[in-house]
Order: sequence, then structure tokens, then C-alpha cells
Amino acid sequence: MFIPRKILEDRLKEILSEDIGEGDVTSSAVIPPNLAIKAAIVSKEEGVAAGMEEASILAEYLSLTVKAKVADGDMIQNGEVIMEIKGDARTILSAERTLLNLISRMCGIATATRTLKEKLQKAGAKARIAATRKSAPGLLYFDKKAVMIGGGDTHRVHLDDMILIKDNHLAIVGDIEAAVKKAKANTSFSKKIEVEVTSSEDALKAAKVGADIIMLDNFSPQQVKDASDLLRKSNFGRVLLEVSGNVKSENLLEFAASQVDIISMGELTHSVKGLDVSLEITKN
Amino acid sequence: MFIPRKILEDRLKEILSEDIGEGDVTSSAVIPPNLAIKAAIVSKEEGVAAGMEEASILAEYLSLTVKAKVADGDMIQNGEVIMEIKGDARTILSAERTLLNLISRMCGIATATRTLKEKLQKAGAKARIAATRKSAPGLLYFDKKAVMIGGGDTHRVHLDDMILIKDNHLAIVGDIEAAVKKAKANTSFSKKIEVEVTSSEDALKAAKVGADIIMLDNFSPQQVKDASDLLRKSNFGRVLLEVSGNVKSENLLEFAASQVDIISMGELTHSVKGLDVSLEITKN
Amino acid sequence: MFIPRKILEDRLKEILSEDIGEGDVTSSAVIPPNLAIKAAIVSKEEGVAAGMEEASILAEYLSLTVKAKVADGDMIQNGEVIMEIKGDARTILSAERTLLNLISRMCGIATATRTLKEKLQKAGAKARIAATRKSAPGLLYFDKKAVMIGGGDTHRVHLDDMILIKDNHLAIVGDIEAAVKKAKANTSFSKKIEVEVTSSEDALKAAKVGADIIMLDNFSPQQVKDASDLLRKSNFGRVLLEVSGNVKSENLLEFAASQVDIISMGELTHSVKGLDVSLEITKN
Amino acid sequence: MFIPRKILEDRLKEILSEDIGEGDVTSSAVIPPNLAIKAAIVSKEEGVAAGMEEASILAEYLSLTVKAKVADGDMIQNGEVIMEIKGDARTILSAERTLLNLISRMCGIATATRTLKEKLQKAGAKARIAATRKSAPGLLYFDKKAVMIGGGDTHRVHLDDMILIKDNHLAIVGDIEAAVKKAKANTSFSKKIEVEVTSSEDALKAAKVGADIIMLDNFSPQQVKDASDLLRKSNFGRVLLEVSGNVKSENLLEFAASQVDIISMGELTHSVKGLDVSLEITKN
Amino acid sequence: MFIPRKILEDRLKEILSEDIGEGDVTSSAVIPPNLAIKAAIVSKEEGVAAGMEEASILAEYLSLTVKAKVADGDMIQNGEVIMEIKGDARTILSAERTLLNLISRMCGIATATRTLKEKLQKAGAKARIAATRKSAPGLLYFDKKAVMIGGGDTHRVHLDDMILIKDNHLAIVGDIEAAVKKAKANTSFSKKIEVEVTSSEDALKAAKVGADIIMLDNFSPQQVKDASDLLRKSNFGRVLLEVSGNVKSENLLEFAASQVDIISMGELTHSVKGLDVSLEITKN
Amino acid sequence: MFIPRKILEDRLKEILSEDIGEGDVTSSAVIPPNLAIKAAIVSKEEGVAAGMEEASILAEYLSLTVKAKVADGDMIQNGEVIMEIKGDARTILSAERTLLNLISRMCGIATATRTLKEKLQKAGAKARIAATRKSAPGLLYFDKKAVMIGGGDTHRVHLDDMILIKDNHLAIVGDIEAAVKKAKANTSFSKKIEVEVTSSEDALKAAKVGADIIMLDNFSPQQVKDASDLLRKSNFGRVLLEVSGNVKSENLLEFAASQVDIISMGELTHSVKGLDVSLEITKN
Repeated sequence: MFIPRKILEDRLKEILSEDIGEGDVTSSAVIPPNLAIKAAIVSKEEGVAAGMEEASILAEYLSLTVKAKVADGDMIQNGEVIMEIKGDARTILSAERTLLNLISRMCGIATATRTLKEKLQKAGAKARIAATRKSAPGLLYFDKKAVMIGGGDTHRVHLDDMILIKDNHLAIVGDIEAAVKKAKANTSFSKKIEVEVTSSEDALKAAKVGADIIMLDNFSPQQVKDASDLLRKSNFGRVLLEVSGNVKSENLLEFAASQVDIISMGELTHSVKGLDVSLEITKN
Repeated sequence: MFIPRKILEDRLKEILSEDIGEGDVTSSAVIPPNLAIKAAIVSKEEGVAAGMEEASILAEYLSLTVKAKVADGDMIQNGEVIMEIKGDARTILSAERTLLNLISRMCGIATATRTLKEKLQKAGAKARIAATRKSAPGLLYFDKKAVMIGGGDTHRVHLDDMILIKDNHLAIVGDIEAAVKKAKANTSFSKKIEVEVTSSEDALKAAKVGADIIMLDNFSPQQVKDASDLLRKSNFGRVLLEVSGNVKSENLLEFAASQVDIISMGELTHSVKGLDVSLEITKN
Repeated sequence: MFIPRKILEDRLKEILSEDIGEGDVTSSAVIPPNLAIKAAIVSKEEGVAAGMEEASILAEYLSLTVKAKVADGDMIQNGEVIMEIKGDARTILSAERTLLNLISRMCGIATATRTLKEKLQKAGAKARIAATRKSAPGLLYFDKKAVMIGGGDTHRVHLDDMILIKDNHLAIVGDIEAAVKKAKANTSFSKKIEVEVTSSEDALKAAKVGADIIMLDNFSPQQVKDASDLLRKSNFGRVLLEVSGNVKSENLLEFAASQVDIISMGELTHSVKGLDVSLEITKN
Repeated sequence: MFIPRKILEDRLKEILSEDIGEGDVTSSAVIPPNLAIKAAIVSKEEGVAAGMEEASILAEYLSLTVKAKVADGDMIQNGEVIMEIKGDARTILSAERTLLNLISRMCGIATATRTLKEKLQKAGAKARIAATRKSAPGLLYFDKKAVMIGGGDTHRVHLDDMILIKDNHLAIVGDIEAAVKKAKANTSFSKKIEVEVTSSEDALKAAKVGADIIMLDNFSPQQVKDASDLLRKSNFGRVLLEVSGNVKSENLLEFAASQVDIISMGELTHSVKGLDVSLEITKN
Repeated sequence: MFIPRKILEDRLKEILSEDIGEGDVTSSAVIPPNLAIKAAIVSKEEGVAAGMEEASILAEYLSLTVKAKVADGDMIQNGEVIMEIKGDARTILSAERTLLNLISRMCGIATATRTLKEKLQKAGAKARIAATRKSAPGLLYFDKKAVMIGGGDTHRVHLDDMILIKDNHLAIVGDIEAAVKKAKANTSFSKKIEVEVTSSEDALKAAKVGADIIMLDNFSPQQVKDASDLLRKSNFGRVLLEVSGNVKSENLLEFAASQVDIISMGELTHSVKGLDVSLEITKN
Repeated sequence: MFIPRKILEDRLKEILSEDIGEGDVTSSAVIPPNLAIKAAIVSKEEGVAAGMEEASILAEYLSLTVKAKVADGDMIQNGEVIMEIKGDARTILSAERTLLNLISRMCGIATATRTLKEKLQKAGAKARIAATRKSAPGLLYFDKKAVMIGGGDTHRVHLDDMILIKDNHLAIVGDIEAAVKKAKANTSFSKKIEVEVTSSEDALKAAKVGADIIMLDNFSPQQVKDASDLLRKSNFGRVLLEVSGNVKSENLLEFAASQVDIISMGELTHSVKGLDVSLEITKN
């Protein structure tokens, strides 16, 4: 997910602008102009660093001097200084909350992703943890980037990334085979085709007409195993299998047992617990 | 929080655009153009309806016909149809996730707010539950509106709403009395002035120089009570008291016992659990 | 009114862009590229400096070197050089008119505000001079900032700044007391509530239900005095009183005699006389 | 100055958005949603109608029903209803000030332009009154359109409209003849070329090398006459003559006596007196 | 390539706005306002219809009534009316050139694509014709959509569509196998991986480490055949083969002879010959 | 066509953004961050350099170091390095195609324009080659600038540049004389007036009522000569004559024989053949 810095600056500026409104009346009223200060962003919790790049870009864009003390993906300790910022006091105070909100959400997502990933790794499962498009509205880029930093797979970032024929498409088109054939005929060779299915039989049908990936939606762990076995037996073992729906931290390993390729979980981005971070003035 | 619909449309379109990218390749490939369908948004959980207005505006903006079955603030039952949508199939499928993400997050926030509010009401506490500016990046408007729908107080929506002299301002300015005087001299009469304090003594100082609101930051319930008593004894009982920091659902009533005016909680917006909602095609 | 420079740059660029269109055809045709020149902005009138910050930001944004010779709020003499600019000739000439228009309007507003403010000060009146929202379309920020530089109060910068229940709201809601109660119930604690009234009796009603500020609309100086006396007698002397309508430079002191807190005048921003400033090439 | 309505809507929305901020808190708090009302925009002064088209477009864009009672260019009487508006109360109240600010400024400009134009017409002078680019920042389109409605000439709307070689260009290029020749060589045939001169001799030089228009800058009425005579005598009577600088309402006719073609005055747009208009709720 | 109409409207408006500038001075000066006319867009050449949808959306957005007489993809005859438009004369004339430019370019691209495609079909070749990203600057969406209408494959629409490791990536990374492995490790499962190679040996290497598609860059027809044979012999016949570089209309069938899957040609979008279309007023 | 660099940056960023989408997945996956490389843009054909300024501005905007080896307007040889770029590898690779597309199209236009211009010069014709508004959608600025670099005349860049009364205007207004009079009455003195005519008689009529330029539309070379003679005979030899329609490279000199002033050709911008340029990594 490499976006040239100048384009990211614009997105970050939009976020800051919303918070500024017609101006930071408090800093304007009580803080003198052109006063140089130092500040530190400190974590109050253990977690995985994320958003360090975005926060640095925003702060530097505002002509502040930034020293990131951790890189995206590093472990953060409780009480650790993760970023030092120097520059104009009014500017730092006006951007404080925006910087912290970016870091807090992205660290929260990366931390949760890392935890699940390590659970899989310890169990020796080959499955990747993936996010869904159930992000906070408008935050697909930031939410997905945080998932990636935490070691997860972004899945589709937006609707033009891949063909994904879901239940609602099938409710309209009717037939899995017809839908996949249509997709193949009408889509660039550069796109993969994934189909969401609700039974082993449909998984097999989808594989036969050439789906690249099959999403087993709301299957039980046993049903996942059955579908996986059926495909292997039918010589479609090469198609990728994604498990989606009903997966929680508690039952994750049950699903992972069947050697599926991808396990996607909406809660990674729709129910985020922000990491507790704060900004402290360290020196006038 | 009344914004003319045309201005809201623009914000909603930005959110949708991010998800669309260069186009919904799946709908384009498998769904015929100009096919009229019906769809229903269904809740899979009990909660408070929010985001109904925003989702309706977005859907109508896309020339879909919308029938909201619940209004913002209504209780939703598990399995309840909360919105019916009719119109072009490709358009509905392209906007499905954006509509759901809006509703899911806003309902999640409203539901959590309502729960805390009712807890206070049952205990007979007069305090209002308020949000902070710890929202998802760029979502201050939507997050705050959901808090309001849930019965909470938005607090500042952005930095130009009120003077709020916080720890970091005081770390620079030094002295509470000087800071409040400066704020009074440099600010429009139309703004309230709030000061964050860390001791009962500072609370009294702030009240004496004319702060309208005093934020007791990271006080224990006992410290809150002491500060409240000191102010009342000193005849500054009319100043508003806000409790912030360390408040959780479990200890909420302990803080509320001291008859404070506002209890603000960052988790209302920084650690949201989205309500589980989905869209179902009801008829081709 | 502190807005981070990067956000101001965008607003200033919009203003410049309108004037540029598809390009400055004159500079392009007759001025060589990459020619370094010096220029000075000179005032042809006495007045109060304003817009120096905005003009500097725009010029620096265009990679010009700026030396402001006066600061916002300083007095300017007729013939005084207020800003020196160095850099690319085509760029300076393309931005000349935009820079001058910014400075001219903002100085004009600041100068008029200062004059009225000094009139009040000499008479020993405590009232603040305040602007209204009757600005040039889209120029609320620049017009209000100029008022502030001239020593005036910005009043509301936009509609989300404060509750201000005006005649048209009351024409719909009917009753002052009901309106204020509704406002208190539906608004964040962080907002003040002001009510516009047309009689002393209504002023008293508004004060009784808890308005923070009362606007006496189109009152004569004697009516202002009566209302002020009534409120004081009724022990509501603490509520702020704003006089609005019919106030002109000539009768300003009559209104100020009654110890009102704010006197607001639309002409500060709706009928501006621009200060006469020009740009002169000082050296090739 | 015909711009398709959809493009104008965007500009008008920007202006409204600035005023709205995060929402009209007053209407939101005290006015019920979806309440239909009627309102009238009334003039408190005599003048020339302008901005009726822009105000109508904005109001209709907001789904209000508009009935303009006067057209741009019509005379307005004191007390006259110039526009009736029906629709949602919150929307009308949120847009009230923006609508009035547009109309007030544009009427003010059109009225002042008309007055000067009629003065010339009564005196039998052939000269056109023209505006300059000394508008309020960012309002070139609206200010120039109002001048046109008042019967004035817009002159350049922006920098790509015509070649206008001014004092500062000549200060760099040195020589009038060289400058005009350069302009002719480097510019499209579709553009006129105007030169600002400070003496009759330079006026003649400019005419000889083919300038289409000559601006006599800061000439006295006698100097204007001399230059005009010299050009006619030298058989360059066909070139257009523009008088600029030092022209005021009082001395306008002295300048017009010399049969110049254009008289341009910065005060038409840099020192506007807004027409006094207000919005009144006429029926709940 | 389905983008909701509202999002397309914005892109089309940008294009129109550029042409309008501060207004269509001709229509404004000579055409009366609110005059209803009829117009027809007529083709002066035979070709494939494209851009009909975009032109319709733009015209309808401007409140014009549109009747498309051909659909995207249909054959157009010389002299055929392809679209009828009714509505305001000034609006039609202001948008005339923008509508024609859209249709002309898109028809031109679709026609060229169709011609090549039919050439392949007649020869019985299985290869798809594909575009590259060599579009006119900023017109990827419109150019690629026209290719698709002409029966071609869009290839990547933008850089986030697929991993495509090109010569310049390899110049940095060094080794094909390392590059593909890195790509697999760092990319979502939802993306295909293509590699550009310059020899049969490298094609085989790429296939062995799991590339989904192999681009044979600047191969001769014989080299293409050799590479194809080598891959089939080595049991990597399932990988897709793309031929790119040096392909022209004249030698197209030579390349197609080797049963490659995709033949991509930059000239489809970088050297477009616009179809000759014009707008005619049919009735006042 | 001088636009301050900062405003151009925004247009260029839009173009780049379209190609980037949610990020360059290839560079992100296989190229290490913060790797400094050198690259060269090389031409594979002979032609006229154009777009060097735009490409430099975009590259420098992205914090790359640029050394242009040729200036806009210079001749380029086959194999010549025209630009060297140093900086971050991911950034260079992400912007590669956008940079090349800009240069390729602009060089292609400039080269074609230069060729036609030289043809005229060699034949001793005085006519200027001019472009029309038949550009690629949204690319008027870039296409017209390239024409100018190639030595052509931009003609109108957009609709506010000049009055040009065309066939469709006349179809509505009816009468050439009425149309020109209307244009004169309703337009600023700063605009030229051009009329498109279809006969020598109409050319004469237009000249008599004061058109500045007359466009002979779809005239044969002989008809052009006749019209030119008629005007000269009637003492309107000073009006500019433009030939438009049916002009091709092959018959250009026939039209030029009649001493017309301007020959405009749509193919300069609607049927561009991009110059073949590529970017090569020269050193890791």
C-alpha cells in the first residue's frame, strides 16, 4: 500500500481540517505565536505500533520536526515514548488530537491483528488472517494498512480489486456457474474471481468453472473440513479457500485446523479498541 | 447538528467513492444494467437506531427509493428490518457496504451511549454522558451525531467550539489564573471557557477567575466529591463540573454520586463495537 | 482564530486560482521566465495593518521571499512600505492583485473597527464592538479575523458557534421561554445561548429561563437603558447584554452609555471601504 | 457571464458551507424537522436588483421553492418583497444569512454602477463605466456579474482575459514598443492588447505599435483631453481609450468630457456598500 | 467498470468546468436565456459507439433531455444521428464541445479496438486485445472504458489492480525469482502477479515460482512461439502469456499465431484518432 | 500560459492520483522503502520537446531531483536522454507512467504542430497554425500549451476567451448582423469578436458590422481566395481571416496561398500520436 506522500498529505489534511473548523480558539487565545516546544507521544498500553508513518507525514506537513522512536510493526511497551515532536506550540496543540486519533486507531487494529496471527502461528496453521471491508466509513485505507502492519491480509481494499460474487449477487443471477462464467467473460484477465458459497456442493461447482478463490460463508469448522476434503478429492485442491463469518478469537483455531488459506474477520476493523496514547509537553 | 442535506451528500459521496475506486467490477461483470430490485437492511442485534438519516440521504442521492422503518433513536430488535431500498441493482450492490458501515458504526455508538445514560437515569444521577474528540479520524460529525442520538452530549465537535484549557496548555502557560484571564481577553463573548484541573485547589482558582466549566481530570470519585464540596462551600456551586478520565461503565455510578454535571468518556467513540447489520435482496 | 498555515494556504490558493484562470497571459507574453525582482507593497492611506499574515502565507506558498514591515494590528502611515517581496517576476505579477485585495479589505475592516473601539474607549464605555455575520459571501474567516485585529469581537464566526435564537426562530416557535428551554435541552453544555428580544419584558423572560446573552434588537438608547435597569433590578445583572440594529458611528456613544456589554454593527463587514494599497517594482 | 447552473451551485455551496460549519445548532435545537414555512426577502432600501439568480439557484439547490418577484437589473423600492421562499424551516433559517449576503453585496454593486452610468448618460457621454479586478478576495465572478447587471463593463474578469501591460510590467521590460511587440508575438490572435501609459507620448507610441486599447493612468481631465487629441490628430483615433485612477463620482463628468471609451473605477468593487435586505418569516 | 452515476457526474463536471472558465461569453451575449431548442449529435464517419453513457450523464446532469439513438458498442454509420438533446439553448451550446470531445475520443478508441479484435477473430486466434496504461493524462477511466466497449481487455486500470513486476523493478531487485517471492509474501491473496520477462528462460523461472501471468516484452513472433513451447513442455501451460511491445496492426496475426492469451498495444490509447462527430441545432 | 507552479501541482497531482488508486502494490511489495535510485527518460523517436516543465514540476513536487536535459521547444533526437531523475525508488516507479504520459502526449502535439508550421514557413505563407478546442476531455491546458510550444496559436483556451459566434449560434439568432451587434452590446470591450461564416457575402456582412475576426468554415481554397479578395476590395482588409475545416497536411499550402491569417486544425489535439518515450533505471 504505497501512496506517494503528497497524496497522503491531502487525506490527512482533510482529517485535520474537520477538527480545526474555523480555528483552534484555545491555542489562539492562551498560547503565544511562534513559541517553540517539544512534545512526546507516549503509549499507556502495550501493543503494535501503527500509524507512525501517517502521523509523521501529517506533523512534517505542518512543518513540525518529528522523530519516530518506533517503526510501524514494532512492539510498544506501556509508558514508551513512541514519537518526539518539536515545533510551533499552537500547531502542535491544534494537531494533537488528530495525531493521537490516527495512531490510536491504527495501533489498535494492528495489535488485534497481530494477536490473532500469532495464535495461528503457534498452532502451526497455514491460514492468513484477513480483514473485510467492514471498516469505519471512509477509512478503508488507514484501517487496511493497519491490518497489514499487524501481519494480516488486506483482502479487497475497494470494490475494483477483485471479482467477489457474494450471496446478493447470486440472489439476482441465480446460478453459481452462470455467474462465474459471466464474470470470466466480462472481466480483465488481471483480476481474480472469488465466489461466496453456502455448501460444499456449490464450492465444487465454483471450482469447476474456474473460480480462483472460494469463500465458505458461515460454515461450521466441520463443514469447512468437508468442503476442503471434497475439493481436494475432486482435484481442485489448488483453489484458495477463505473462511468467513462466525469466526471469533475463541474458535479461530477450530477453523484453522482444516488447512484453509484465509480466515477473514470483520471485527478487525468494525469493532476496534483504540490503543491508549497521549501527547505530553516535555519542554517549553 | 443540522447540516443541509446537500452538504451532507458531499461527505457521504466521498466515503462511497473511496470504496468504489475505479468501479465495482463484480456488479459490472455479473449484474445486468437497469435491473430494478428490492433490498432490506436487517439488524442481527438489538440496539439503538442511528445513521438512518445519513444512509437515507446517501441512498436517495444515488436515486434509490428508501423507506426507513425506524427513526434515529428508536430501539431496534434482533431480526428487524430497519430500512427498505428499491432501485437499480448495480447501484444498490455498489453502495451496500458503505450504507452498512455507516449504520453499523452509528448504531454501535448510539447503543453504547444509551446504555450508559440509562444507567445514570436509573440511579437518579443528574450528570450527562458526554463524548470526547477521540473519534475515528475524520468522523467527528458522524460519531458525535450518533452520541447525540443515543442521548449523550456531543461536547466540543471541533476545536472552535469552546475554549478548553487543557494540561498541555497549562504546561506552557504555567498558571491557571493567567490562562483563564488571557482566554477571557482574547476570545469572543460568544464562547464558554472550560479549564482542566488536577486538584480541588486548582478547581477553586479556575472558578474564581470566571471559568464556565471545570474539568476534573483523572480524579477518583472521592476527589470529585471533595472538589464539588469545596466549590459549593466557596459559593461557586453554579460553575459546571465535568469528570473525565478513568471513568468506565463499572465505576460510572461512583462518579455520578457527586452530582457532577458532565461525565465524558473517550471509549464512546474511540472503541466502538459496530452493530451487526446486513443487506438482503428481497426480490428480483 | 488560529488555523494551521497549511489549511490557510488552500483557501488562499483558491482565491488566487480564480484570478489566474488558465494563466496570466500578460506576464507570460512580456516578462521573461525565472527573472528575480524586488517589490514593495505601499499604503496610500493611514490605517490599521491587517491581512499581513495571510498575504505573507500566500506569497511564501508561491516560493517568494517576504519581509513584513508591519505586523497585523500596527498603525500604517500614508506612503509606508508595509511588505517587501522578492522572487520570480511572473509569480509576483500574477499574484499582485490577489495580495493587494486581501490586504486592502482586511486593513479596511480593521481600521474601521479600531476607530469605533477607540471612540468607546475615550468615552470610558465598557462595551465591546462586535461584528455580525453580514460579511462578503464566503469571507467570514477573513472578515472576522480583520475585526479581531482591529480590536473588535468576532461574534459567531459561523452557525455552529453558539445558540442564537433570533426573531425568525421565535416567529416559528412562538414563545421565548419555550424556545430557550428547548435550546437548553437539545444543545451541548459547551454552547452559550443568546436570545434576540424586542422588549424589556422579553429580555427579563429570557434571563429568567437562563439565557446567557440577550440581544436587544433595534432598541433606542433609552430602551436599552430601561432594559438594562430592569434586568439589574430583577437580579439578572450578570447576563450579557448585546445591542444590535440602528447603531451607527454617530450614535454609538448614546448606546454605550447604558453599560451594555456588546454593541454589534453589520457595517463593519458588509460595507467595507478598502484601504488603498499598491505594489511597486523596486528593482529589476 | 453564463455559467451552467450546476457549476454555480458548487460555488454557492462552498459559501454556504463556510457559514454552516458542523451545523446550525440553533435551528437544530429549537426548530422541528420537516416543518414547512414561507419566507420573504424584503429590501429596506431603494436600489438595483442583483444576485436574484444566484440566490434562486442556491435556494432551489437546497430543495426550496423560490419565486423571484424582481429580475436582476430591475429597480427595487424600499419595503418591496423581492423574493418569496417556501420549504423546510431549518433549511431556510440555515441559509438565510448566506442568501442575504449574496443579494446585499450584489445589489449594492449594481446600484452604485447604475448611478454612475446614469450620470454619464444624462450628460450625454459615450464612455462605459467599467470595474477593475479590485474585488473582494475570491469574489471576482459575483462582483463582476453585479457590475454587468448595473450596466457596467466587467473589464478583465481574470488574468487570462486580455493582455494588459501595466506600469509594473513596463518597469521590468523597460520600453513600451518592445513590450507590445513581445505581446503580439507571444499571444494568441484571439486576445486584445491594452497598455497602461503615463503620458500622451507613450499613448501615441503604444497606438503606433498596435495596441488595441490604451489606459491613461492617473491623468487629469485636461491630460486625458490632450492625449485624446494627439491620438486623433495622428490618425489613431480608432484605438480605445480607458481612463483609470483618480476618478470619483464627483469628477466623473470632467473625465467623460473628452470622449474616452471606458472609465474604470476600483471603488465599484473594493468599497461596496451592501444594500439593506432582510428575510422575514411570513407564515408558519 | 460500473461507477455510480453521481460519482461520474463529478468527473464530467470537472471536464466541463475547464472549458467554461468564467462563463460562455458568446452564448451569454447572443443567445436569449431560457430558450428551448433541439439538437442532434451526428457522426461524420463509420465507427463503434462509445461515450454515449458518459455524454448522457453529463447532459442530464445539466437538466437537458437526452435520447441516445445508439448504445455503447453499437456500429454507427456515416451521417447517423447518435443522440438527440433538448433543453436550454445556452446550456447546450456551452456543453457542446465537451460532449463532442468525450464521444469523439471514446468512439475513436472503441473503433480501433474493435477493428483489431475482429482481425484476430477472423484469423481464429484466441488472444485478447488489451490496452496499456499509456492513456491521455488523467483519462485512464474513460480510455479504458472505451477499450472495453470496443471488445478489448482493460488490463490494469491503475497501479493497485495487480502486481506487475516490470523491467525497472527487476533492474532494482535483480532477480526474477526473488522478486516474485517477495511479491507473494507482501501482497494480498486477492491480487494476481504478473512478471515482465525478456527471455524464454526467465519466462520459465517466473512460471516456476508461481507467477500468474508472464509478459513477453519485445519478443519477436518466433521468440513468442519458443517461449510458449518451452512453458508447455515444462508443464506450465496454464500460466497466462501476454505479448507486449512491437505489436502493430500489420504484424498482429504473426504474434497471435502462437496461441498467447493477451496482446497489449499502447497505441490503443496513446495515439487515438478521434471519431468525427458534430452537434447540429435541429429546431429553434 | 503562465500558471503559478503551485496551481499546476494540483492538476498534476489529480492525474497522478487517478493512476495510483489505493497504492502502487507492485513497488510496495518488491521495492524496499527509502532506496535512492537514478533514472533517465529517453526518447525513442525524433520530435519536439514539450511537457518538460510539467513533468519537472510533478517530479519535484514528489521530492525527486530533476535535471531536464532539453527545454520545451528543443528538438529531441532518437535515443536522447531528455530528463534525469534522482530519488526514492518507490516514488519514481509510482510516477513513471504519469510522467511519461504527460511528456509523450505533449511532445506528440508539439511535434505535429512544428511540422505544419515549418511547412508554411518554407512556403513563405504568413498564416499561423492554430488549434481548436477539440482536445482530449479535460486536457485543454496541456494540449494548448503543447501547441504553443510547437509554435502554434492556442486559439481560445476556453469559452470565456473571446466571442466566437458559430453556426449553431446563428442557427438560433438567425442573422449575422444582429448577432454581432448583440455581441458588441453585451460584451466587455476587452473581448474580441469572431464570426463563423459560410459564404463570402456573410464574411463581408460580418466585417461591416465590426467583427474582429472572420472564420471561413469549410471553404475550398478558391472560396477562401474569393472571400479574401472581396474583403480587401471592400476596404475590410484589416479584419483577421481564419480558415477552418477540411484542412489537412496535404492541402495546407493551398489554403495558405490566399494570405489568410490563421489556419486552425482540430487534428492537432483530437488525433494525437504520442511520442515514444520511456524511463530507464540507470543506477541502483
